[in-house]
Amino acid sequence: MRFVLASASERRQELLRRILPEYEIMVSSFDESLVPYEGDESAYVMELSRSKSHSVRNLYGGSEDVLIIGSDTIVSLDGTIYGKPADREDASSMIRSMSGKWHSVYSGISIISADGNTDSSFSVRTDVKFMEMTDDEMEDYLDTLDWAGKAGGYGIQGESSKYIEEIRGDYYNVMGLPLNALYKNLKELDILG
Amino acid sequence: MRFVLASASERRQELLRRILPEYEIMVSSFDESLVPYEGDESAYVMELSRSKSHSVRNLYGGSEDVLIIGSDTIVSLDGTIYGKPADREDASSMIRSMSGKWHSVYSGISIISADGNTDSSFSVRTDVKFMEMTDDEMEDYLDTLDWAGKAGGYGIQGESSKYIEEIRGDYYNVMGLPLNALYKNLKELDILG
Repeated sequence: MRFVLASASERRQELLRRILPEYEIMVSSFDESLVPYEGDESAYVMELSRSKSHSVRNLYGGSEDVLIIGSDTIVSLDGTIYGKPADREDASSMIRSMSGKWHSVYSGISIISADGNTDSSFSVRTDVKFMEMTDDEMEDYLDTLDWAGKAGGYGIQGESSKYIEEIRGDYYNVMGLPLNALYKNLKELDILG
Repeated sequence: MRFVLASASERRQELLRRILPEYEIMVSSFDESLVPYEGDESAYVMELSRSKSHSVRNLYGGSEDVLIIGSDTIVSLDGTIYGKPADREDASSMIRSMSGKWHSVYSGISIISADGNTDSSFSVRTDVKFMEMTDDEMEDYLDTLDWAGKAGGYGIQGESSKYIEEIRGDYYNVMGLPLNALYKNLKELDILG
């Protein structure tokens, strides 16, 4: 079986290696803005990962023994969805709204085979609580530029780690790949040895 | 101010760098078995970190401007305390008892100045749930030798990560240093800039 990860994220690549020592990377050109958010985070993030995976699947035609794993992660707070910040101002407004509050991180995972016999998606939620940050702390954080390219404007493994009071759920889900849920799903599909 | 970390753990050293860019390392020769466990995990782990820190403090006499940070981490499950496993058999019995269950990880942190003016300790608890593991999964895990030198026989950042369903609390506390609580305490003591 050839495994293909449909994600350009280095964090996801590093995490997937803990479950699958060998896999290829094929990044999809799918335009995420085509998927509308209709109020259900779980459905939305699964639709994103499914669309990404299907766009990569098209590149493999009907090849046998090719399994594509797609993943997407979003942050949800008070009914608003945060993807990757466009710029510092955008990151600043995300961090300001998360300061002192719980928010939810959702990852969608899709596991689909190029031959069409497997097509499975699920989502995982982890709740995260930021401490109440001062203006100086927020500016210090924004100065690190660690917000760039990360859903919600932070990576839990990075410069924001000292500001995070508590999480409930899978830590690796917040990093971008829910390891335990993915491992269990691959086991159930009888894909792991 | 000179900071001294009283711990040989590379994980703690790496984590502390996220709060304090510069510090020295001085490892204590304190014999942990001298501290009896009397049923209160929090009191026990604070006594361990306090004893470690005081034993390092003795090396600095009454120097001004030296602050020692000591830390210790234990795992507690069903009234039993797990430290570092002595051997594979010991690790095996720890993992077997944690499989499919929640357990608690406690870190004690002590912040003491060589001149005796600061002497503060606190503890942080994080709950961790392992998935129900098969015998094969436990053997695979033990084969990685990742259990060696780690309280409870696992490091959440390592080979066990795919078996962990959920945590409640600070992830970094499970790694050995509760970043957010330490950061807040140093801030309250007016030690950070």
